[in-house]
Amino acid sequence: MSSPSRSTPKQYEDPGPPADLSALLAPLSVAIVGASNDPTRIGGRPVHYYRQAGFSGALYPVNPNRDEVQGYKAYPDVASIPQAIDFALLAVPAERLIPSLEACADKGAKAAVIFTAGFAEIGEEGARRQEEIVAFARERGMRLLGPNCLGLFHAAHGHCPTFSSALEGGLAEPGRVGFITQSGAYGTHLLVMARERRIGVNYWISTGNEADIGVADCLDFLAADPDTDVIACYMEGVKNRPLFLQALARARAAGKVVCMMKVGVSPMGAQAAASHTASLAGADDIFQATMEEFGVERCETTEEMLDIVYAASRTRLPRGRKLGILTISGGAGVLMADAAHRHGLAVPPMPGAAQKALLETNPLASARNPVDITAHAINDFGLVGKNLESMLTDGGYDMLVSFFTSWPASPVNGPKLREALISGSQGHERVPHALVVCGPPETLAPYEDDGFILFDDPSRAVASLAALARIAERREADDDARPPALPEPVPVIPQGAIGEFEAKDILRGIGFPVLPERLAATRAEAVTAAREVGMPVAMKIVSPDIAHKTEIGGVALGVADEAAVGAAFDTIMQNAARKAPQARIEGVLISPMAGEGLELIVGARCDPVMGPAIMVGLGGIYVEVMRDVVLRRAPVSVARAQDMLGRLKGAALLDGVRGQPAVDRAAAAEAIARLSQFAALNDGRFESIEINPLLVRADGKGAVALDALITPASGMTEETDDA
Amino acid sequence: MSSPSRSTPKQYEDPGPPADLSALLAPLSVAIVGASNDPTRIGGRPVHYYRQAGFSGALYPVNPNRDEVQGYKAYPDVASIPQAIDFALLAVPAERLIPSLEACADKGAKAAVIFTAGFAEIGEEGARRQEEIVAFARERGMRLLGPNCLGLFHAAHGHCPTFSSALEGGLAEPGRVGFITQSGAYGTHLLVMARERRIGVNYWISTGNEADIGVADCLDFLAADPDTDVIACYMEGVKNRPLFLQALARARAAGKVVCMMKVGVSPMGAQAAASHTASLAGADDIFQATMEEFGVERCETTEEMLDIVYAASRTRLPRGRKLGILTISGGAGVLMADAAHRHGLAVPPMPGAAQKALLETNPLASARNPVDITAHAINDFGLVGKNLESMLTDGGYDMLVSFFTSWPASPVNGPKLREALISGSQGHERVPHALVVCGPPETLAPYEDDGFILFDDPSRAVASLAALARIAERREADDDARPPALPEPVPVIPQGAIGEFEAKDILRGIGFPVLPERLAATRAEAVTAAREVGMPVAMKIVSPDIAHKTEIGGVALGVADEAAVGAAFDTIMQNAARKAPQARIEGVLISPMAGEGLELIVGARCDPVMGPAIMVGLGGIYVEVMRDVVLRRAPVSVARAQDMLGRLKGAALLDGVRGQPAVDRAAAAEAIARLSQFAALNDGRFESIEINPLLVRADGKGAVALDALITPASGMTEETDDA
Repeated sequence: MSSPSRSTPKQYEDPGPPADLSALLAPLSVAIVGASNDPTRIGGRPVHYYRQAGFSGALYPVNPNRDEVQGYKAYPDVASIPQAIDFALLAVPAERLIPSLEACADKGAKAAVIFTAGFAEIGEEGARRQEEIVAFARERGMRLLGPNCLGLFHAAHGHCPTFSSALEGGLAEPGRVGFITQSGAYGTHLLVMARERRIGVNYWISTGNEADIGVADCLDFLAADPDTDVIACYMEGVKNRPLFLQALARARAAGKVVCMMKVGVSPMGAQAAASHTASLAGADDIFQATMEEFGVERCETTEEMLDIVYAASRTRLPRGRKLGILTISGGAGVLMADAAHRHGLAVPPMPGAAQKALLETNPLASARNPVDITAHAINDFGLVGKNLESMLTDGGYDMLVSFFTSWPASPVNGPKLREALISGSQGHERVPHALVVCGPPETLAPYEDDGFILFDDPSRAVASLAALARIAERREADDDARPPALPEPVPVIPQGAIGEFEAKDILRGIGFPVLPERLAATRAEAVTAAREVGMPVAMKIVSPDIAHKTEIGGVALGVADEAAVGAAFDTIMQNAARKAPQARIEGVLISPMAGEGLELIVGARCDPVMGPAIMVGLGGIYVEVMRDVVLRRAPVSVARAQDMLGRLKGAALLDGVRGQPAVDRAAAAEAIARLSQFAALNDGRFESIEINPLLVRADGKGAVALDALITPASGMTEETDDA
Repeated sequence: MSSPSRSTPKQYEDPGPPADLSALLAPLSVAIVGASNDPTRIGGRPVHYYRQAGFSGALYPVNPNRDEVQGYKAYPDVASIPQAIDFALLAVPAERLIPSLEACADKGAKAAVIFTAGFAEIGEEGARRQEEIVAFARERGMRLLGPNCLGLFHAAHGHCPTFSSALEGGLAEPGRVGFITQSGAYGTHLLVMARERRIGVNYWISTGNEADIGVADCLDFLAADPDTDVIACYMEGVKNRPLFLQALARARAAGKVVCMMKVGVSPMGAQAAASHTASLAGADDIFQATMEEFGVERCETTEEMLDIVYAASRTRLPRGRKLGILTISGGAGVLMADAAHRHGLAVPPMPGAAQKALLETNPLASARNPVDITAHAINDFGLVGKNLESMLTDGGYDMLVSFFTSWPASPVNGPKLREALISGSQGHERVPHALVVCGPPETLAPYEDDGFILFDDPSRAVASLAALARIAERREADDDARPPALPEPVPVIPQGAIGEFEAKDILRGIGFPVLPERLAATRAEAVTAAREVGMPVAMKIVSPDIAHKTEIGGVALGVADEAAVGAAFDTIMQNAARKAPQARIEGVLISPMAGEGLELIVGARCDPVMGPAIMVGLGGIYVEVMRDVVLRRAPVSVARAQDMLGRLKGAALLDGVRGQPAVDRAAAAEAIARLSQFAALNDGRFESIEINPLLVRADGKGAVALDALITPASGMTEETDDA
């Protein structure tokens, strides 16, 4: 038996240096192999886009049939390029790929984008060819994006090795947002919609087959990139767990906003993802738990992701959850108050004195919160400024949402509204302020330039502010706690079937509380055992052939003294001999009575994609029927285990309801954290561990495992780990 | 004590004739009192809109200072109008309102819209003035919309008595959608957004203060209106419950789609709604249950409502839940499969033979479902048509969603795509088909005209199709079941405190199963009682002064024969005399042992807005901690009570888990239905009724109430009901 892996999960360490993708993302000299003079063709579009973007580096189109491509001097082959190149774009047939890569490597290229399809996505033959190009690239120290991808752009650098049709309308406006997308076509759709929203996309990277560079590399790069504040990611599966976790840790440490759209959640979706990019989706609950752990905002829909990216890239994060609502429509005010409640924001009232002052100048208004200045404000825009100022100064709200419907579109009133908003906000520009408005884009853009964020749907405005508040809170959450240290040497989960006794022994070895128990083969042994574990005891027949111990009279509970233990032993053995004469009898198990308490189920499982996870749920029929379970990536600290307990829907049961006492949360949390560290150190060695139940007694009285089941990894091969 | 109300809830009867709002909504001659020549002013906008809309009836602007208003001949006062009028629009100061109304009534007006503000919304004085105008209108047989409203329009009639700025861009395009909105300003925002979505709004009615005509009247009218298929409603509170229910029943019977946005759900929102339109929000759970009962689609956000209204007004309802997904992006396919799962749609695979046939012509595709024809389809639009046709013919899907991103915007490919979609759909035009596309509106409109519904967000496309499927299913659901008949006379809930014994007596009177019990004052009475109720019995001391019966030795359980009953009586009385010598002792309660079973909580409450409701939840800590409760408007049939039980999150417990037997659902459902009918017949007489627990025994063994609490309506006055 080898000793377990010593690796400690990455989030507790400083991440290493970030992925160096500078040759890929910011090259100074670029070769386009397969360049076309026709700007609508795959090999022609990038040339067109480079020109549009005003790329300031050297651009070398390679085309054996032309001297010039779209106004650039063309070269018959890569070897003819007069200077060294950093980067190559390859739009060539699959069979010409390796020679082209070789020529580019010879010219010094350190990175390449490969548009070419027909690799891993089409089956085994393609996968073999893909391995060949990766092997070649590794040998020559070249990084690859693709194959079968739509390329990328880096707007500030004018670098556009992509044939995505989204750039036909020009690059997005300047900004500090990076998009990473595993799907090229869907990434294009995202980009078109992002541009419509005026989201400043600086990087857009489509990773395609991810033969070399994947989402994790790009995420790690952008997490370290000084020009990026907000990262939006569309992915179908995680291919490089350590790098992915490192990137998430780096982004968190750098205070960046990461929005994640991970699909393949449903059975049909997971199947489609597998056939699409050969990505393994993994279980979604553990992916979701990982996102929460790193403060990543998980987005279910495109619209939700773009809303949050838009908001995060155009305004600051709020300091808290207090929302002020300003409206010219009472109905919209009610609607936004409802939305705030739904999204967990507070809508506290304005201070009484401030309400009074506002009502004096506008008696028909409601000054509480929502502050409804009514549509009559159109006759006096001073009211807008005055109320806004009072909400910011007297109300002290962390963020504001204001409803002005189509007022900005009015040539007369639009400028007045804008002036009132600016003057009313003076000195409070750090407070995020969403305007709910509609109208032609050109009438709305000035408000965005003033620092407001704009929505036409009031519920989406509130939801986006709530997301910003959530992101800010997660950023504050302490994540530095370590799991408890386990006694050395930490047990290694063996191969093959593990019995209940062995499982409990392993748990005792990590300091997990397990009821002491003794197997007694004789009456005398039974009495000694009862004395050792402490009376009253529970006594149970042990036989591989007896499933229903109670039915054959094989169980005695609450046996209180030595004489009774001896008598009970005899009775149990006689019952067994009479009712199950064929059964192999191993003896009688003696354990102390567990006492009263609340039953939890505590477990661990090893996800093929995200690794070991720890879970806790309410025991018995609760967990079976209500699925009230909380899950985290292993290991967790005791503090995080406490947090997990608090997140159970039935957490109130831990505090005692209907006259029950509060239970020993601290003991339960300690047990959970220990098991999580054990699971983390046995990554890959087990399929699942289940403690059902963990009996948690009244506060101060501890917790104890009454049953334990460890299922080793199926098909695990003995490691030759000599560490 | 008077007998209970005999009224049976309306949904079980044919609704009466619909509200007659013809003079309001389709008048032939219109007076505009306070008409202005300036088309930007409140009194000028309607005149401008009438002209734009080409109103074909007679229009009489009233303005004492002008001979002509915006090209129409003007009259100095109403009396000077040469003909009778059907309808008047009043844009006059509050103090001139009654004389103006009188003049209009004298000219024959049967309906009026009142823009004027300063009534109930500003407090008591305004409320008094509002009552005056209502009294006047009632006396003269006139219906009023408003005051403090933005008016209405009826597009097909060219009737535009509104100053909503939403009409500045012209009327919406023709269609069969009606909007009803309690909030004028928010209704305007809705209308602007609806027009952007190309929703054909025929009616738009803003109800304002609802002094006379309210949301319920308008809903009832549109439910009966032959020109309306889809009704969208924004409301803050229900003011006329019987009419509201009648309208919902009528809409359901007429097969109309009703989308309801009801705000004031959160505490802050309810408070804001109360101060905004003096609407009582009522409890949201009972409102929600009412919407489900009548097949109304409840919408949380504006966008959701407009999406569903858009879809329902432009396509048919699907026959089932099977969704076919066609895509040129694998990623979008995965995303839509996930969304389908989230929204409860099925994504069954294509038949094997059809998959094979499709793969033969397009080997790089995935033909399962999602059917991913890949972006290569841009080279062969025949693939679009062929795959679409196979999905419709071979796949037999109930609805389709297709992802084509910005292809329609391409001058070259757009027309090819459109042709392929039309040819592939031939013969299957009844199948709803959502396209996920983006681009300039003018490039998309042709697809809408072909009968496709368009979304730029794939998740919203799927969510909207799921809503259509839900609406179609609710329409099919049988709603004709009646509650059980109760024994006559049905008990009436008395005023004042009701003790446990009395409560149980009342329940017995409606055939609700209650454990029999006898109060015994002597040992002999105890023995007789035990014989009558059946042994073994439970025995409990009864005293208003003893709260904790067990602690003083006042309880005996499972007492099995007459001698033991006698002895237990003596012991209990002695214990009470010793431990609680001051207590007033009423005797010992004798009841049979209830036996084993699952504990439910069954209750009723009377909502101030929606009336009596019935609820059922899992008993004990389940209901307290998990809030696992299902609620419906009372009364319910036994079948609906069964349905309620099935909707409990922990419904599996009813079937027995962990070796427990299945419980007697039929008995529980019968009890729930009986209580619901009792609650319905005692509408207004009680605040709440709680049976906790209702013990439901193993199947066939019945259910029995172990405790009951009836809280009468506080402040209820004795009715002088002589029915």
